[in-house]
Amino acid sequence: MLREPGPAVTRLGFFVARMVLKPGSVGVVTPKLMRFDAPLALASGASIDGYSLMVETYGELNAERSNAVLVCHALNASHHVAGIHADAPDVPGWWDNMVGPGKPVDTNRFFVVGVNNLGSCFGSTGPMSIDPATGRPYGASFPVVTVEDWVNAQVRLADALGIERWAAIMGGSLGGMQALSWTIQYPERVGHCVAIAAAPKLSAQNIAFNEVARTAIRSDPDFHGGDYYAHGVVPRRGLRVARMIGHITYLSGEDMAEKFGRALRRSDGIADYQFHYEIEFEVESYLRYQGDKFSEYFDANTYLLITRALDYFDPARTSGGSLVAALAAARAKFLLAAFTTDWRFPPVRSREIVEALIANDRDVAYAEIDAPHGHDAFLLDDPRYHRVMAAYFDNIAREVGA
Amino acid sequence: MLREPGPAVTRLGFFVARMVLKPGSVGVVTPKLMRFDAPLALASGASIDGYSLMVETYGELNAERSNAVLVCHALNASHHVAGIHADAPDVPGWWDNMVGPGKPVDTNRFFVVGVNNLGSCFGSTGPMSIDPATGRPYGASFPVVTVEDWVNAQVRLADALGIERWAAIMGGSLGGMQALSWTIQYPERVGHCVAIAAAPKLSAQNIAFNEVARTAIRSDPDFHGGDYYAHGVVPRRGLRVARMIGHITYLSGEDMAEKFGRALRRSDGIADYQFHYEIEFEVESYLRYQGDKFSEYFDANTYLLITRALDYFDPARTSGGSLVAALAAARAKFLLAAFTTDWRFPPVRSREIVEALIANDRDVAYAEIDAPHGHDAFLLDDPRYHRVMAAYFDNIAREVGA
Repeated sequence: MLREPGPAVTRLGFFVARMVLKPGSVGVVTPKLMRFDAPLALASGASIDGYSLMVETYGELNAERSNAVLVCHALNASHHVAGIHADAPDVPGWWDNMVGPGKPVDTNRFFVVGVNNLGSCFGSTGPMSIDPATGRPYGASFPVVTVEDWVNAQVRLADALGIERWAAIMGGSLGGMQALSWTIQYPERVGHCVAIAAAPKLSAQNIAFNEVARTAIRSDPDFHGGDYYAHGVVPRRGLRVARMIGHITYLSGEDMAEKFGRALRRSDGIADYQFHYEIEFEVESYLRYQGDKFSEYFDANTYLLITRALDYFDPARTSGGSLVAALAAARAKFLLAAFTTDWRFPPVRSREIVEALIANDRDVAYAEIDAPHGHDAFLLDDPRYHRVMAAYFDNIAREVGA
Repeated sequence: MLREPGPAVTRLGFFVARMVLKPGSVGVVTPKLMRFDAPLALASGASIDGYSLMVETYGELNAERSNAVLVCHALNASHHVAGIHADAPDVPGWWDNMVGPGKPVDTNRFFVVGVNNLGSCFGSTGPMSIDPATGRPYGASFPVVTVEDWVNAQVRLADALGIERWAAIMGGSLGGMQALSWTIQYPERVGHCVAIAAAPKLSAQNIAFNEVARTAIRSDPDFHGGDYYAHGVVPRRGLRVARMIGHITYLSGEDMAEKFGRALRRSDGIADYQFHYEIEFEVESYLRYQGDKFSEYFDANTYLLITRALDYFDPARTSGGSLVAALAAARAKFLLAAFTTDWRFPPVRSREIVEALIANDRDVAYAEIDAPHGHDAFLLDDPRYHRVMAAYFDNIAREVGA
């Protein structure tokens, strides 16, 4: 069904893959920093004088160099897609359930590349990096970057790795947007685009949530206009609120009701209301924990930068508002997947992309998966979702001789 | 149809009222502060040594004292329901489209009472008030209050006005919760309960949004643990973020898309992205404006207090979790109304109340109104909504001889 040539839209919610998933870990991995010295022109008109990207790879590139898969990350993730680092054996990569030996993206067959984006805070060049021109962190002076800029930065990585054409480029949410943008910017270099829980552009409500998060960060007195590094502080209060807001939008209301309901915080074993403003309900405890944790590791300027890239993503914009026109250049085959309870980028947003691809006579499969976990579902190992992914990559493997 | 005795659930979306709405204003009104000296015991176990409530009334109480309607307010509103104040002729009451001569709640027939709740910041006793025990503002020491406490405070107002039984108690959102609570706490004193866009209790997601807003306020360095009055500051940054978050939940995604879409800020006439973190999209400008405006007039402690009252509202809680049992005491007739695009308190939440009332053999009408404006719809003058309200109050007027 998935191999049918020509345009084909298939609902795969109940598709049962033939292969049995044999989960395994890629084991201990070591990221490497790759340097690109040539200046990179950005969509804003600014340019950056060379940059470094933190990269991880899993599996082996075959002799034909035909089995490479690029994994693009979303807001708060990184190059660390799978396996563990020797110094953090309890922290598997963010998509470890998806990428590994015997997993849907099988590292026995594919050479998988994870990359931390330009402007992010996990080792790639970003606002925290030292600006060679001043000897101080870029901070507020780091340029605004777009999804298109990221793709341009990733192309050089492909060149450096000797990958002329990716078997697939994949990602969830903002990662899916990068995969989509690759097919428009570099149509000959993408075999398959796998975009999960994505959207062709943000809605007003999506932008609104981003703007509230940014306002929380920017109005934290410790933000210092983005140059907080020089003050030895971190706008932790703002980051915390930003993450709490984001987190609500990642979960479905149903999921929150199921996980927390109106349960009172259990640790103290008290069943009555305490009539205070401290933590009373489980959901408060959970959100505060998520906010605190995030504020300890994520860079505030990166949060601004990545949410802005989300806001700006709109490939139809330079094609007279027509997504059909924007995607006319694409040559890849596509798998789009969306989750029924995702209210951040609900299935209707993926279907907009599917329809524009069909209008372009592209080969597109679409899976709408009935899953309770909202937007976060793309990170979870729902068996139906993973069977869809496994089956799709199984076909890619055969196609490229992996 | 609405007069049918016994339990009757009526979908009134397309009900056409017989009366023609003749809008008119109640004109210039003057609020008055009413003092209640006896201590008020609160649900928390604390008590408050007397309190004042700011009150406005419209229309005339008839000789039989049978035509009184109490309007309960939601998070950020007040006693100023209709008309204008002499010193603010451009600021009509928050439900001026609903209450007035010839309006759905017709002040030619009803004596309408607006009251600012205990703990709010528009003149009633609250965190900003001077604590007689200390001579300083209550601030953080103002007790946590509940919906039930508000109703107990309002009962004394009814006594003072000589109103033994309200023809109707009405409200939207949190106001509807107060109306509902009246029917449980004082069943003989409520003729009709009109609860619009309400819910029998908050969901985990509802609580989560409140908690983010509170975190924004509490983590503002100008909050000073709630005692910011003494420091001559206001936690404006936190209030701004709190209001922005709230505002997103009041509007529907559809409405935001319709109103703002991805339009760039128009004031500067520039059609290209500016690649910065200042206002770029119209929706950002709108949200910032709402946040700024709100932070200039609303008290931060009141925001905490009222959102906590929302969190705590759960009348079924003291009835073994059964809303049916909780509503068994109610003797009023009911109109519930909900709006299709309200995702804060969607129709399914009103239907929970309707079903519990039917199980109790109560007389209940239910209107599910297909309106695009989300939760805020209860404040707007959608003609179908207003016809439902007008028809319902027309029947109440006949019933009570107004």
